[in-house]
Amino acid sequence: MSTQASQLERLTFFSDAVFAIAITLLVIEIEVPRLGIASDAAYLAALHELGPSFMGFVISFLVIGALWAAHHRVFGMLGDYDRQLVMPNLLLLMVVAFMPFATALMSANTLARVPELFYSATLLVAGLLQCWLFGRALRAPYLQPDCPAAEVVAVRARSWALPCAASLSLVLAWFAPAYNNFVLLLIPLLVRLLPRMALARWNRRNADSG
Amino acid sequence: MSTQASQLERLTFFSDAVFAIAITLLVIEIEVPRLGIASDAAYLAALHELGPSFMGFVISFLVIGALWAAHHRVFGMLGDYDRQLVMPNLLLLMVVAFMPFATALMSANTLARVPELFYSATLLVAGLLQCWLFGRALRAPYLQPDCPAAEVVAVRARSWALPCAASLSLVLAWFAPAYNNFVLLLIPLLVRLLPRMALARWNRRNADSG
Amino acid sequence: MSTQASQLERLTFFSDAVFAIAITLLVIEIEVPRLGIASDAAYLAALHELGPSFMGFVISFLVIGALWAAHHRVFGMLGDYDRQLVMPNLLLLMVVAFMPFATALMSANTLARVPELFYSATLLVAGLLQCWLFGRALRAPYLQPDCPAAEVVAVRARSWALPCAASLSLVLAWFAPAYNNFVLLLIPLLVRLLPRMALARWNRRNADSG
Amino acid sequence: MSTQASQLERLTFFSDAVFAIAITLLVIEIEVPRLGIASDAAYLAALHELGPSFMGFVISFLVIGALWAAHHRVFGMLGDYDRQLVMPNLLLLMVVAFMPFATALMSANTLARVPELFYSATLLVAGLLQCWLFGRALRAPYLQPDCPAAEVVAVRARSWALPCAASLSLVLAWFAPAYNNFVLLLIPLLVRLLPRMALARWNRRNADSG
Repeated sequence: MSTQASQLERLTFFSDAVFAIAITLLVIEIEVPRLGIASDAAYLAALHELGPSFMGFVISFLVIGALWAAHHRVFGMLGDYDRQLVMPNLLLLMVVAFMPFATALMSANTLARVPELFYSATLLVAGLLQCWLFGRALRAPYLQPDCPAAEVVAVRARSWALPCAASLSLVLAWFAPAYNNFVLLLIPLLVRLLPRMALARWNRRNADSG
Repeated sequence: MSTQASQLERLTFFSDAVFAIAITLLVIEIEVPRLGIASDAAYLAALHELGPSFMGFVISFLVIGALWAAHHRVFGMLGDYDRQLVMPNLLLLMVVAFMPFATALMSANTLARVPELFYSATLLVAGLLQCWLFGRALRAPYLQPDCPAAEVVAVRARSWALPCAASLSLVLAWFAPAYNNFVLLLIPLLVRLLPRMALARWNRRNADSG
Repeated sequence: MSTQASQLERLTFFSDAVFAIAITLLVIEIEVPRLGIASDAAYLAALHELGPSFMGFVISFLVIGALWAAHHRVFGMLGDYDRQLVMPNLLLLMVVAFMPFATALMSANTLARVPELFYSATLLVAGLLQCWLFGRALRAPYLQPDCPAAEVVAVRARSWALPCAASLSLVLAWFAPAYNNFVLLLIPLLVRLLPRMALARWNRRNADSG
Repeated sequence: MSTQASQLERLTFFSDAVFAIAITLLVIEIEVPRLGIASDAAYLAALHELGPSFMGFVISFLVIGALWAAHHRVFGMLGDYDRQLVMPNLLLLMVVAFMPFATALMSANTLARVPELFYSATLLVAGLLQCWLFGRALRAPYLQPDCPAAEVVAVRARSWALPCAASLSLVLAWFAPAYNNFVLLLIPLLVRLLPRMALARWNRRNADSG
């Protein structure tokens, strides 16, 4: 294995580890109720109060999981890297590592506007950094030579799903804090729609110029 | 190494990391007694009170360890994967990452019924997700071509040990909270018994059809 | 790469991850003084009070580091493994993952006898499990065929350094809690002495039988 | 793959994991405000108060990230290792693992002198250990044979950036606690300047002797 390839592997490995740790630390921020001997109803009430925390755990787990899956896919398309990629990657990891805080802030203060804005803004920054990183990485010197151009178009378009949904969620957080997170359910849709639209445009352009 | 194989390796790696982090975070939830200078008896009493926490640590460590070992074995039988496996795998990891919370809830509220039900239900969900993932993964496009069919039968059967024991534990939690966890001692037995039964049935069917 | 070798690699990887997480979690248990604006003297006093915590951090970091280094060396001598090794390995990892608790208990209750006994006992169990694992692993079916017999003798002898020092520390904890940990400074010595003694005995026996 | 190479890989892996965990644990030390339903202004004030914590998170994330990137680069130049490297590497990792504590101490006690001195001193120790490790590693038996001498000169010079900036920060912490950290902004500059100066000197010496 060439040294350069093994260095790319190590960058990938380090990123994977940060994703994995951040995703697993989410649970630490959920406070454990300690009631001692109490009635079943008291426990159910305590768990019910933790509802927003469970919600936040699930949302953030899926978001970080999706960020990881995209990172996984994009870095699988690379055959080389250089220092130009280290900084955007590190900044993306910084926001991912920050997610447990943003999640806990939102979950511990249900229905409050500022924490929801803060959470949506964190997602937005993560999404934009991801677009920046992927835009930089999916290019001539780094891409594996046999990587099909259509896949690059699709993956780049796909990476706009999170910033789009997060922007919308940010705006809605002002008017309907907590409920704004339902907008994130659009992500699975956008992840299919955006690449399709981008590929259609790309095919049209190719046909025009062909 | 083909790109696809290295992508499978990275998925495996990410999963391993989440298992390893969740298993190690279990200890964080055990509160450290801070008595200052006190008599030996006071310390022994404090440690005795932590008995359920140590118990919970050991049980969850072994359960996550067993989940990891099974994951390890199944992914060692795969030669390929696609996006169909990413979601069930991510959901399984979500429940594994959630285990430190469920364990702490149970350990901090000894003999209470709801936390025990909650813990058993978490185990049950983890077990069912594992069955789902393994059922999906141990199939034609993913399996290594030289993987013996009998091993697939055995591994699939084996994966039902946790859901079986967890269901029983869930029912017993209602009647005998805390003591219900002794049912989990059946797992090492089931892990041997279920594959044997499944293989016997499979051999019989093969003989019938042969 | 053969599947078996890659499975051994994955077991190694999982173990490495647990070692790395446990060693890094040690710091989490040191409570951060929050004094707000206060005099330099107040801060120095607060840091001075944390002395035992820093001490505990350093000792446990070095112990886990040494356990990792030994594991690293032994698994580097293996070419194969089977399920016989999974359980002793998992139990060793369980005690390693438990170290942050034992360390915090000792550090938060300076000079108290029971926490010191508890800590030494944890080290002793870790050491004995390591001996068990290495004794099982460093044998015919697992060892790489070209591994020199003398190295096996040396590594096995070396693994007795921790249990020896921990036993001594356990006894001394009864009489001189906290000071007993100085015995652990013997480990670097024992790690050199024990293999030398074992090799001398082994050479003598070989000469006798030769 | 030779065993020795795979052992070097495992050392690298373990180091990567500790870097990744320490960098991700930084966020855990930021306390989450729990205000319940409160005015937007109260939340903004709470977040404003956390300013130093966010600052500390960003600084330490970048410092650990830079330490990792340098480690990544240096270990990518190695083809072999022996036990001489294990101890300096372990000590460097110990200080990296300690960073979350030093960061939290500084962040939780804004403008106080002792915590700032403590933080700068931690950075200084990390930097010096890194210089020690790299000085030891970038030498004949360990370096890959085809590694250009100029790169070794550059990387060694580069590793002095952190100790230089940290020393300056340590001195300034006495006079202007908290503001002293701005000195760390010099690091990106030093990282470029120091290798250039070292290479110029090296070229001059080569020309003289040539």
